[in-house]
Amino acid sequence: MTRVTEARAAEIFEATKRWGRWGADDERGALNLLTPERALRARGLVRTGQVVSCGRELAVDPAPDNPRPALHHMLVAGDVAEPRRPGLSASADFVGVAFHGMAVSHIDALCHVFVDGQMYNGFPATEVTSLGARRGSISAAFDGIVGRGVLIDVPRHRGVEWLEPGDSITPDDLDRTLEAQGVAAEPGDILLVSTGRDARRAVHGPWDPNTTGLAGLDPECIPWLAERDPSVLGSDGVSDVLPANEHRWPIPVHSCLIVGMGVHLLDNLRLDRLAAACAAAGWWEVQLTVAPLQIRGGTGSPVNPIAVL
Amino acid sequence: MTRVTEARAAEIFEATKRWGRWGADDERGALNLLTPERALRARGLVRTGQVVSCGRELAVDPAPDNPRPALHHMLVAGDVAEPRRPGLSASADFVGVAFHGMAVSHIDALCHVFVDGQMYNGFPATEVTSLGARRGSISAAFDGIVGRGVLIDVPRHRGVEWLEPGDSITPDDLDRTLEAQGVAAEPGDILLVSTGRDARRAVHGPWDPNTTGLAGLDPECIPWLAERDPSVLGSDGVSDVLPANEHRWPIPVHSCLIVGMGVHLLDNLRLDRLAAACAAAGWWEVQLTVAPLQIRGGTGSPVNPIAVL
Amino acid sequence: MTRVTEARAAEIFEATKRWGRWGADDERGALNLLTPERALRARGLVRTGQVVSCGRELAVDPAPDNPRPALHHMLVAGDVAEPRRPGLSASADFVGVAFHGMAVSHIDALCHVFVDGQMYNGFPATEVTSLGARRGSISAAFDGIVGRGVLIDVPRHRGVEWLEPGDSITPDDLDRTLEAQGVAAEPGDILLVSTGRDARRAVHGPWDPNTTGLAGLDPECIPWLAERDPSVLGSDGVSDVLPANEHRWPIPVHSCLIVGMGVHLLDNLRLDRLAAACAAAGWWEVQLTVAPLQIRGGTGSPVNPIAVL
Amino acid sequence: MTRVTEARAAEIFEATKRWGRWGADDERGALNLLTPERALRARGLVRTGQVVSCGRELAVDPAPDNPRPALHHMLVAGDVAEPRRPGLSASADFVGVAFHGMAVSHIDALCHVFVDGQMYNGFPATEVTSLGARRGSISAAFDGIVGRGVLIDVPRHRGVEWLEPGDSITPDDLDRTLEAQGVAAEPGDILLVSTGRDARRAVHGPWDPNTTGLAGLDPECIPWLAERDPSVLGSDGVSDVLPANEHRWPIPVHSCLIVGMGVHLLDNLRLDRLAAACAAAGWWEVQLTVAPLQIRGGTGSPVNPIAVL
Repeated sequence: MTRVTEARAAEIFEATKRWGRWGADDERGALNLLTPERALRARGLVRTGQVVSCGRELAVDPAPDNPRPALHHMLVAGDVAEPRRPGLSASADFVGVAFHGMAVSHIDALCHVFVDGQMYNGFPATEVTSLGARRGSISAAFDGIVGRGVLIDVPRHRGVEWLEPGDSITPDDLDRTLEAQGVAAEPGDILLVSTGRDARRAVHGPWDPNTTGLAGLDPECIPWLAERDPSVLGSDGVSDVLPANEHRWPIPVHSCLIVGMGVHLLDNLRLDRLAAACAAAGWWEVQLTVAPLQIRGGTGSPVNPIAVL
Repeated sequence: MTRVTEARAAEIFEATKRWGRWGADDERGALNLLTPERALRARGLVRTGQVVSCGRELAVDPAPDNPRPALHHMLVAGDVAEPRRPGLSASADFVGVAFHGMAVSHIDALCHVFVDGQMYNGFPATEVTSLGARRGSISAAFDGIVGRGVLIDVPRHRGVEWLEPGDSITPDDLDRTLEAQGVAAEPGDILLVSTGRDARRAVHGPWDPNTTGLAGLDPECIPWLAERDPSVLGSDGVSDVLPANEHRWPIPVHSCLIVGMGVHLLDNLRLDRLAAACAAAGWWEVQLTVAPLQIRGGTGSPVNPIAVL
Repeated sequence: MTRVTEARAAEIFEATKRWGRWGADDERGALNLLTPERALRARGLVRTGQVVSCGRELAVDPAPDNPRPALHHMLVAGDVAEPRRPGLSASADFVGVAFHGMAVSHIDALCHVFVDGQMYNGFPATEVTSLGARRGSISAAFDGIVGRGVLIDVPRHRGVEWLEPGDSITPDDLDRTLEAQGVAAEPGDILLVSTGRDARRAVHGPWDPNTTGLAGLDPECIPWLAERDPSVLGSDGVSDVLPANEHRWPIPVHSCLIVGMGVHLLDNLRLDRLAAACAAAGWWEVQLTVAPLQIRGGTGSPVNPIAVL
Repeated sequence: MTRVTEARAAEIFEATKRWGRWGADDERGALNLLTPERALRARGLVRTGQVVSCGRELAVDPAPDNPRPALHHMLVAGDVAEPRRPGLSASADFVGVAFHGMAVSHIDALCHVFVDGQMYNGFPATEVTSLGARRGSISAAFDGIVGRGVLIDVPRHRGVEWLEPGDSITPDDLDRTLEAQGVAAEPGDILLVSTGRDARRAVHGPWDPNTTGLAGLDPECIPWLAERDPSVLGSDGVSDVLPANEHRWPIPVHSCLIVGMGVHLLDNLRLDRLAAACAAAGWWEVQLTVAPLQIRGGTGSPVNPIAVL
């Protein structure tokens, strides 16, 4: 299945590519848009102090969308707590995760994807070695991401509980949803596109996104995004509509946003609770904080983005 | 070495214990103090929009303070990126960490420590099984922690770059430092006590906290803390002064705050950059966000707390 | 589905239980049968020097029979090998595995299974703590297992390529197969029961043993086994026929052999190559060596048993 | 410190290199010497049936010689065994190990070391990718290694309990020790060189081999080895004497044996018990079995070699 021709995807990539925009040596990409001024303005979006997590519980159980489950191992449990003895009586655990994939809420670093052997800003893919990334690593986001988060709640606008797997969101969907929500996307925004995945999963159980698909952005949304100029793009899916195209641009939103535009992506978020909170409040802009683990040379991080309304 | 007698520690524990304060079934402890009102007020602390991380880079290298290094493994690097072929060309990695210890910035869940076979609110230690914690797990903080962070920069007030390992911070230190900073600790605050550990580590290299020690709070600070009623307590050390006492209360701040008072702790933070930012700004209160990974049944999480000034 | 009543399973367990046979403190169980004399006799089974592995390739890919794949991570690959520089140029990797399950060739220690809260020889299950097993661990086999291996090639005798999932092997099957092979089971033997699982998997692909089943021993084989008195029992399945019984004895071969009789089990072996070699040679007894990793407190180990004909 | 000049090491490498000996495509190297005939002859070395492990307990605790400890995590312990309920009551664990290094008994695959960007038989280092080794992996040894093991007990011949760290074993040492033991090294042997490391460690505790050193083979032993033509070389150290040379040949035995000669190495064995058994028996040749885990694309494996006298 193919939603965009190979030629059109290449055309979009070239048209939206912005290498050199922040200098030939830049590794932060659109995070450069997150200026103190924007963080300052984002505080103004806090109107009730309601705090909402946009992360999923860490996926430790095998499932069709989680073929390589995260590891959560107890190192010491309460069974060996020996009361009334010197020495701390404590419990501890180990967590391990290959966070890319379809189950874990995570951020993609700019080195996560390559096009023609190059990552964002033209650094060669070989800068990502078996010892870690020397360029484009998640260290660009070590200081945290704080800005204005705008939820684009497509299912709500369409009047459905969720979009079906494989369903494409068009630029028109984005425009109309934002219009209905009474909010406009601005440069530097952290855009969060809801597809209702969590609601569908709660009803129908998990499915394999590689074969059954995921709702996501039609590739024609990429120029739309380039115009709005977000700092970060997130979704409860993987932003791209799946199944992947069977040509050189399998998931063009990843390729164009990460490689071409230098935009970090947030994948597999949990947006149902944010959607409910926004609908109840009647506004869809929030202060959003993303705090990646500081994995030197990492290609991203598991995250638990926190919205404050 | 012992800084407090066993009897006095037990006395402090009993005097500051608050089981049942939020109900017999409560597992959130002092996180209950983080009401929307307090989150709303915290936004007012954002004055310039400067964002500062309070987390350390994930400790993947062996060191005297890191005998069980975190794992960061590349799963696929740029060496196998094959340009101009169908299929996504991408890099990915795995991260694994036993986050408790002396090297990784992490949050302690309320099930992390036991006193006489019990955790906070009297739940038996055996509720933490080899399959994970059924009570007191980090799920209490899944929604994120957002509040007013107050940095207590003890070395700055004492006019030193750092406190030496084993040095105790007294209630008087806390009072005078806060007074000099022109800020008062209020109920629900996230208190961050700096000892200058990062500065010392940068000059002298890492050391073993178990033998050489860490600067931290004298046990007599515990009643002081109980009066101030913080929601969370953090430090660039482990809050407790080390080496540990050689009796039933090896690290009484852990025992009293976590078990007795239900206060989550933040250990091994990086506070030098926050200290510099606060000193430059001339204020020591910030909006602080902590976003634990959502590890069901977990005893805590690695974190990267984000301050906004 | 149930192949044996709960009452009959309990009866078999009691009838074949041999706690105390090697003393009240014994943790080696039937490994005690592997005397130097038996190892000496086993050398006589080497007639051609043909060496055959009975282990499967480590299962690192998700599959219906492998929901929690093993981890194989490169730590350093050839991409960073820098020729003509001081310092060793080398590659290295990490391997991690939760070896119990349906995919990895492994040995079960005597602490792996409990009946009514007890393991072999009556040690309480609580001797297996969150820190490891204090009783019945795989350390009983640290010195290696060397003895006479006898392949019981049931599919060959039945004239089929494989037994279907859920198919039960009866005591009569075992007798007739051995008779046809011209070999008798003797005390101290390492008995290897082939079901043709590898052949079926090669043709039909992997399946979920928990739902679709596995061929294995009917519970009535347990008294037969108790009479033959093997040191170790192995299979290309998990010895038990699956799906499991829906009562207190879900997999009675595991319960009776491990807990009752103190017999280490070898699960998920690869026996097709041994079967082919034995058929070609015309004999079904071999020198067999099993070399568990020396995991102190472990409940077993991944293994690669080596047969020599 | 340097025990051999860079020029002499290069000369030895060239003089002992045997690329192409078993064909340009060969990946088994000296394992080709382990013919069925040799395995058949090795059975004749079994005279009493005494079985002795040559592996160390898996090193899960931090130590100067173990800066990256192996992971052993209980997945489920006896604390949750619930008697008299349907469902199997069992314990299970996870083991993870970066086995190269100075603490874990392991085998080095032929892809483990490179010289000038090449591995054994001239395959480029880049054949070892971040996804695993495409050439020279441990799969060459998946079928197991069975042959004649010859212990060369140098400390015993020198009349000491152990060789000191940094002490070099010369060709003359090897000759005299073998002569005293009344055994000659033959082509295809698995040579095991004891330095008494375990005895020293038991008395003095662990030390850092990189700085304090390890006893091992003087580089002039390499031509001696090339003449004897072993199938595998092992040691209780790492065969090379340490600290490493500070030039392009830091550990020339590794470079020459693995890369030049195609000989798999066994590092960090435990040889004290084998030494005691051989001394008691009065002979130093055994049947030896090494059974690597079948890690596809792996650079080696943790092992527990089993000797039978």
